[in-house]
Amino acid sequence: MEQLKLSILGVSSAIPLSNRSPSAQFLAIGNAHFLIDCGEGTQVKLRQHRIGFGRIKHILISHLHGDHFYGLVPLLSSLQLLDRQAPLYIYGPAKLEEAVRQQLEITDSIISYPLHFKVLEASKKSLIFESDHLEVHSFPLRHGIECFGFLFQEKPLPLKMNKTELAKHSIPVAEIRRIKAGANWINPEGETIANEELTFPSEAPLSYAYVTDSLPVKHLHRVFKGIDLLYHEATFLSTEADRALKTHHSTAAQAAEIAEICKAQNLLIGHFSIRYKSLKPLLEEAAAHFANSHIAREGYAFTIDRKIRLLESEKENSYS
Amino acid sequence: MEQLKLSILGVSSAIPLSNRSPSAQFLAIGNAHFLIDCGEGTQVKLRQHRIGFGRIKHILISHLHGDHFYGLVPLLSSLQLLDRQAPLYIYGPAKLEEAVRQQLEITDSIISYPLHFKVLEASKKSLIFESDHLEVHSFPLRHGIECFGFLFQEKPLPLKMNKTELAKHSIPVAEIRRIKAGANWINPEGETIANEELTFPSEAPLSYAYVTDSLPVKHLHRVFKGIDLLYHEATFLSTEADRALKTHHSTAAQAAEIAEICKAQNLLIGHFSIRYKSLKPLLEEAAAHFANSHIAREGYAFTIDRKIRLLESEKENSYS
Repeated sequence: MEQLKLSILGVSSAIPLSNRSPSAQFLAIGNAHFLIDCGEGTQVKLRQHRIGFGRIKHILISHLHGDHFYGLVPLLSSLQLLDRQAPLYIYGPAKLEEAVRQQLEITDSIISYPLHFKVLEASKKSLIFESDHLEVHSFPLRHGIECFGFLFQEKPLPLKMNKTELAKHSIPVAEIRRIKAGANWINPEGETIANEELTFPSEAPLSYAYVTDSLPVKHLHRVFKGIDLLYHEATFLSTEADRALKTHHSTAAQAAEIAEICKAQNLLIGHFSIRYKSLKPLLEEAAAHFANSHIAREGYAFTIDRKIRLLESEKENSYS
Repeated sequence: MEQLKLSILGVSSAIPLSNRSPSAQFLAIGNAHFLIDCGEGTQVKLRQHRIGFGRIKHILISHLHGDHFYGLVPLLSSLQLLDRQAPLYIYGPAKLEEAVRQQLEITDSIISYPLHFKVLEASKKSLIFESDHLEVHSFPLRHGIECFGFLFQEKPLPLKMNKTELAKHSIPVAEIRRIKAGANWINPEGETIANEELTFPSEAPLSYAYVTDSLPVKHLHRVFKGIDLLYHEATFLSTEADRALKTHHSTAAQAAEIAEICKAQNLLIGHFSIRYKSLKPLLEEAAAHFANSHIAREGYAFTIDRKIRLLESEKENSYS
């Protein structure tokens, strides 16, 4: 799949509503999948979005406020009852494992599939997952308690071969891998053939950043720049800026400023206070500062195709 | 309100589905209200049923399997965020308080409204709540771990006065209370006027029993008899009787037999295994043994009026 697909399972802050669930997202980037935060009810949302539990291999928890992880133990229990065998990797703050183990113990629950906890590094941007195609980093946010953002970046894709030129220069097959990686070719006559003559540029790698429950972090542009999609919390309107500051949250305007500073291609705002029955004013406030702002609409999936490079959305949860 | 109203918030066993939630019910009997079990997502179901959080004063937890209480801490947290002041009473197995406190501690959550835990008595039927109008008892079930059923019974209602007869016998106002309670009247001439001459019979008190997660308990007729409404788990069909036995659950036929033995007026079956996409076979199996069997249909409210005495149902959750 040459795309990034983000399913929005929940965007409510703190208190859920009839039609607004606590934080959870499911990201498919290339062939890798990540459940990001896991508020109460996430397992039902996954089902409603028709995201098979078998696709869950990595769960990332931003911080230990209940609206971001109270759905985790129920999900782990269901996976057990469904006879999961595959290992599961959970990334989160230091105390997450204790929280999970306590709850499992009190219900006499045994998890028999391999469950691996990875403690996130509180002080700096850190690589937490790497495959041939992808890197995932965590980075610290500012929320009163330990809280993390996550950055998902495809690795640079191999260059595409210009077969006509390769044939013309009679380049041996053994050299192709080096040239794909960007090397020039020195022919038997000692002549240098520039890589650009032998290749076509590859597509730019896709990238996504998840920033929730934080005061605006101005230096985020040093963590990521020019990403395709930024999800940034926008719990409040600027009229509630004092409250945002006091509760360690951001306003829609601040989320948009971060998107601007980080040169994001697209911004999704979420984690809305229940005081806002309509989300339109939040979108308007963000869009005034950053044109490509969108509501992270619950029940929808947002996709960016690696070739087309446009943010598209479609309803994925027919129950919501 | 001269009725019993039971809102079915969830009837799934163990694993929730897109359209089936873990156990939770809200009972209004007269002017008293009880939340019975509190599986994951109960707070959202309460909102969808338009049951105001202010009506929650007593929460009864049958046992410490996650599908019966994982929604409790999230609900307590939301009540805190919504600035609840009123005390809350929670009834459950001994370890429930520890489970709740652990989770609150790990999220640095402080509950500032008064939170009272009452440990249920494992060995026998016990009075757990009493008001002028109502008694609530817990009683032990058979589920491998400590597990409780709950019985809600209105107290006998005062007799209705036959005003014509009262006037005829010139009965002093001071005597009315005694006569309402059933006493005869001895007039100044020493004659006894039988209570039945002075009064009309009162309506029979309403009653409800909640029996979930249990093997069939044949002696339940010694705990309650002739109740208006019995909710009994029916996790499996009889074709899965072995599995029911092994997992300490009941079949639909067994639930119906208990209803028969206890001379219940109406039976609601619930707590369905996810293997049953359609619930019709479960209803058919129950109804073959007990005619007044009904599916505890999620999203519906069931009512029995004290005068009319018929079980009625209506859709209450427009989201489900």
